[in-house]
Amino acid sequence: MPTRTASPQPQRPSRVVVEPVRPIVDGGALPAKATVGEPMRVVADVFTDGHDVAVAAVRWRTVPTTGKPGAWQEQALEPLGNDRFTAMIVPAELGRLEFDVIGWIDHLETWRRGTAAKVAADLDVTLELAGGERLIDAALASTTMPDADRRALTALRRSLRSGDTSELSDPRWPSVFWRTSPRDPIASLPTPLPVDVDPLHGAFGAWYEFFPRSTVNSETSPGDELRHRTLAESIDRLDHIASMGFDIVYLPPIHPIGTTNRKGRNNSTTAEAGEVGSPWAIGSSAGGHTAVHPALGTVDDVADFATACRTRGMHLALDIAFQCSPDHPWVTEHPEWFAKRSDGSIQFAENPPKKYEDIYPLDFESSDWQSLWDALADVFRFWIARGVTVFRVDNPHTKAFAFWAWALQTLRAEHPETVFLAESFTRPRVMERLAKIGFNQNYTYFTWRQASWELREYFTDLSTRTVDYFRPNAWPNTPDILTEQLQTGGRAVFVTRAILAATLSPSWGVYGPAYELLEHLPIRDGSEEYLDSEKYQLRSWDLDHEDSLAPLLARLNQIRRDHRAFRNLDTIHFHDTDHPGLLCFTRTDPSGAGLPVIVVVNLDPADRHSGFVDIDLAAIGLPEGADYDVVDELGGVTHRWNGSRNFVDLAPWSASAHVFSVHRVDDRTSTTRGVTA
Amino acid sequence: MPTRTASPQPQRPSRVVVEPVRPIVDGGALPAKATVGEPMRVVADVFTDGHDVAVAAVRWRTVPTTGKPGAWQEQALEPLGNDRFTAMIVPAELGRLEFDVIGWIDHLETWRRGTAAKVAADLDVTLELAGGERLIDAALASTTMPDADRRALTALRRSLRSGDTSELSDPRWPSVFWRTSPRDPIASLPTPLPVDVDPLHGAFGAWYEFFPRSTVNSETSPGDELRHRTLAESIDRLDHIASMGFDIVYLPPIHPIGTTNRKGRNNSTTAEAGEVGSPWAIGSSAGGHTAVHPALGTVDDVADFATACRTRGMHLALDIAFQCSPDHPWVTEHPEWFAKRSDGSIQFAENPPKKYEDIYPLDFESSDWQSLWDALADVFRFWIARGVTVFRVDNPHTKAFAFWAWALQTLRAEHPETVFLAESFTRPRVMERLAKIGFNQNYTYFTWRQASWELREYFTDLSTRTVDYFRPNAWPNTPDILTEQLQTGGRAVFVTRAILAATLSPSWGVYGPAYELLEHLPIRDGSEEYLDSEKYQLRSWDLDHEDSLAPLLARLNQIRRDHRAFRNLDTIHFHDTDHPGLLCFTRTDPSGAGLPVIVVVNLDPADRHSGFVDIDLAAIGLPEGADYDVVDELGGVTHRWNGSRNFVDLAPWSASAHVFSVHRVDDRTSTTRGVTA
Repeated sequence: MPTRTASPQPQRPSRVVVEPVRPIVDGGALPAKATVGEPMRVVADVFTDGHDVAVAAVRWRTVPTTGKPGAWQEQALEPLGNDRFTAMIVPAELGRLEFDVIGWIDHLETWRRGTAAKVAADLDVTLELAGGERLIDAALASTTMPDADRRALTALRRSLRSGDTSELSDPRWPSVFWRTSPRDPIASLPTPLPVDVDPLHGAFGAWYEFFPRSTVNSETSPGDELRHRTLAESIDRLDHIASMGFDIVYLPPIHPIGTTNRKGRNNSTTAEAGEVGSPWAIGSSAGGHTAVHPALGTVDDVADFATACRTRGMHLALDIAFQCSPDHPWVTEHPEWFAKRSDGSIQFAENPPKKYEDIYPLDFESSDWQSLWDALADVFRFWIARGVTVFRVDNPHTKAFAFWAWALQTLRAEHPETVFLAESFTRPRVMERLAKIGFNQNYTYFTWRQASWELREYFTDLSTRTVDYFRPNAWPNTPDILTEQLQTGGRAVFVTRAILAATLSPSWGVYGPAYELLEHLPIRDGSEEYLDSEKYQLRSWDLDHEDSLAPLLARLNQIRRDHRAFRNLDTIHFHDTDHPGLLCFTRTDPSGAGLPVIVVVNLDPADRHSGFVDIDLAAIGLPEGADYDVVDELGGVTHRWNGSRNFVDLAPWSASAHVFSVHRVDDRTSTTRGVTA
Repeated sequence: MPTRTASPQPQRPSRVVVEPVRPIVDGGALPAKATVGEPMRVVADVFTDGHDVAVAAVRWRTVPTTGKPGAWQEQALEPLGNDRFTAMIVPAELGRLEFDVIGWIDHLETWRRGTAAKVAADLDVTLELAGGERLIDAALASTTMPDADRRALTALRRSLRSGDTSELSDPRWPSVFWRTSPRDPIASLPTPLPVDVDPLHGAFGAWYEFFPRSTVNSETSPGDELRHRTLAESIDRLDHIASMGFDIVYLPPIHPIGTTNRKGRNNSTTAEAGEVGSPWAIGSSAGGHTAVHPALGTVDDVADFATACRTRGMHLALDIAFQCSPDHPWVTEHPEWFAKRSDGSIQFAENPPKKYEDIYPLDFESSDWQSLWDALADVFRFWIARGVTVFRVDNPHTKAFAFWAWALQTLRAEHPETVFLAESFTRPRVMERLAKIGFNQNYTYFTWRQASWELREYFTDLSTRTVDYFRPNAWPNTPDILTEQLQTGGRAVFVTRAILAATLSPSWGVYGPAYELLEHLPIRDGSEEYLDSEKYQLRSWDLDHEDSLAPLLARLNQIRRDHRAFRNLDTIHFHDTDHPGLLCFTRTDPSGAGLPVIVVVNLDPADRHSGFVDIDLAAIGLPEGADYDVVDELGGVTHRWNGSRNFVDLAPWSASAHVFSVHRVDDRTSTTRGVTA
């Protein structure tokens, strides 16, 4: 190396450059997300100077927190044009993996293309053939070459020696040379990139939230409506939920509820005797975050409930809300974990000028932060030990990011099967950061995105800019959010919002009984709070009511299970329509195993709209002008569509949406219309 | 710290998160670019959990290759909304700097906002005032506080003690608290980000290329047209070039030209006796890359020529083309630097089936690559020692990236005043990589971007995605590229392409005499090569011809010097027009010192077009509905414009473009029309 060099290079550097494109989070400092058994798209830019042919591979291996990394696996990258390469890899194990992209100059392929071009131009290639022999000899020096490749190269060498160039255009050479060309020197990413591999329900699932204390059936048990039911009793709701095809059963906090400043029905600041209070006011003399409300049962009942979910093919999700009622044991056992006001009292929660005297926030800047953090992580460990591996975390954005980064990394290293959903409705950068530092999923702005352009813009952003780390979970309602649209739009809005959530987002959820039964009255005009909310009082529900949306929810979840296209987010593609009230998008299965899906929704709950949709056929893998059958998975009808522009007619009183699976018409039919695949 | 933690944290971590936005290249692995004395925009996301107020600063320091880093300088970041912050810093020295972004919770400002909200809601704030005193006492414990701040805090403490809350809404507090709130703990970027600071002409300048051997004036020296002129003689061209306001005088290679396979006029493969050959076929028995063609003069003449440029306020740029004629001394002195064919002959340049027998490429995979790299770096050092600090590098994309990364880093560490322009017309990723690894500037696709949408799309990409490292140099023509548009479009195309290059791109250039004199004949139909190109033969020019574009070029360069808005790229903004043949864009000076500029160009060389332009007034710092004067810096006329939509009428036979400077109408006038600034 030249003596003046600032950074000596010990060996001849590769002429190839490898630049990461995706997945990558914060330049590789934080892990991207993948799903076990599901394809993960890797994209990188790989190129060299001049006209030589650069080729590439992706390599990946498991990197457990303790113990040795797994063996490297390798797969070829395919060119996309303009020096961009891609491959789909399928992680086989939960937990952390890392991947690298390697590139090298394929001198054999470079030689083949150059020589073939000269042959085609009728130029003398005597020296080229001799050069080819020299390159083949160098390749054959490898001792690890597959026998078939060795035979192929040896045969090619023989042809070249005899002056026969007819073999050069054989399409097998690029892949043979990819395997056999010497890779020295090799280029790679500056550093391998980390990926966390989740269970399927970390990325894809349907969530159902209900209050186990309010599971009396008002039709079959009249007079019993106001009985506080137990966890053991509420297991009778699980068959109903499973019959609708939900994957996750999510319960609001199950802990003892404080009595100091307990909220009364309809969020009254004073509770009357016998009122049950909000489950989010956690902690009483009966215990805190590792205790169960006596009226619900015991810790063992939670384990039994989790088992009951599993036997029905579902997962139990608990709500973890790190806040304390003034009666929580920690208030007296660990007063240092709470911030004090100037008079020595504990600082209650507030967002000036609003006050929440019934809840004390924890102080993440406490002098004793280390013991606090450990105790909070232990809350998760306590429930994981009882068979709970899914957690919906309440307001994580009001707790320190550094705590979550530490806790989630630690817990997932111990239990890679765990899934954490961030209930964070706040500013974009904050929600994105929670996703980056380890939350598997996040609630979204879907709840308030209603117009066609809003949904298109939002899900385009979710499926591109943040897709490597932010996994949306779309909820049309929650116990805290009854949108103005649901209050006023009638049944059609409940229908379309469920269809949109279930088909736009890999994960979606509903706050169950209220959604099934079209609950739509607010506590007052202009509020998003429910009237007579279950948050503050016992309710009973007639789940067998003839107006129930249960059949639609069941059908939606069945369609999602039948079609792998719904599992990923990055293939979502929006298409233009003639009418701003019509939204059209497609989903596809990157593995190619599943059918493409076309969704068209009339967003207007009051009126019929018809018009043309302009399908970008390339987005669903169809050639221009193709014939194809679209089977309405909701309505059952099949239409023959042709090309891009096709007509739809949707009315809220008949069908508000189409969810079409797309079936290619056989090649013969296409060919007669001059179409090639 | 909890015992189970995977990564123990020795001290209480900050609750603030700092994420870099820009400038950043490859996650911080490579330096971004800045310009000495010019504002550089820093953007970062800074936020914390909950409702506390996060504030931020940018810190930067020089980091010379050898010796100690300079002292940190600091500047406040201002909020842009949605947790994004920005500041403009002005690097004062050439060479490498690094910057960091730091963030902290401003507990005083958090307290002030919360307390003011409670005061406004008429709530009791007794405890808040006491809490404020406690925070002020903690701040006053600092020994380094400015006296004025100490007095302000002490006075505020006194007011609070007396129960007076009237001070809380004083607008000075955010900045006082920014300076005085304790910053412990502090958050910062994961690692400081590097920036290379160039001289102004590394980012902003007008380039003029000419062949010094062809500088006979055909009008004043009839009969002398075919005389090969020397460097010393061609100094007589510099006044002409300086009078047009160019900043860089760029000469094609000045080295001895090979005779083996010398090209004849019009790129003939056989040269007749006495033909001069192409300057890019470098090397003969007279020497190689550190020699001067005997007919041009000596190495000392180059130094004199560089001095002559400098005395006229210009820089000399030499063309460095790392390739060798078969007669280059290196071919015999260092045969190992060239790749061999199977018969032992040196591999000439080729792009199969094309052959370039007159040029040998250098082999960057040579076994003796280290001595080759050193020799190439020494070529630059040789000319730098003769006073040349600007280099136009020929086809850098056919040489190893690792070489450029090493050479440019090494040379710039030795000579931070050097500027390298990459003559790379190739695929996007390759051009971008050359920019990332150290080329100050790059040629661009501008040459072939002609339609309004093409220019808009391309310069939007250049001014956003790659703006931190890729600096465009826009050329309407080069000795190798006479676009089809210039061949057929007549004078109007020469006019508009010069205006576009000079006003769209901070750096622009022309291949001089041919452009001034509207040279437009191709060697044959369908070719972009010039007929009777100077590359292969001597030419003479009548620079005083009445049709010369020299007055336009001079005016454009004067406008560029008069308006700082042209110096940066990231403020470029395109605006809609009623007609696809009209292109409208604005440039602004981020420092606020210079006037905004509006450019409107009729791209049609054959027809008049008129219509409305829709100026996004926010992009030029004007309020909605504002009145403003636009002064045509080309035509001299002033118009009073109002609001967004204004009418233009441009015809190739009168004026093809407006280059307006924008002048606010005084506040009184605006106010009478109900406008607020």
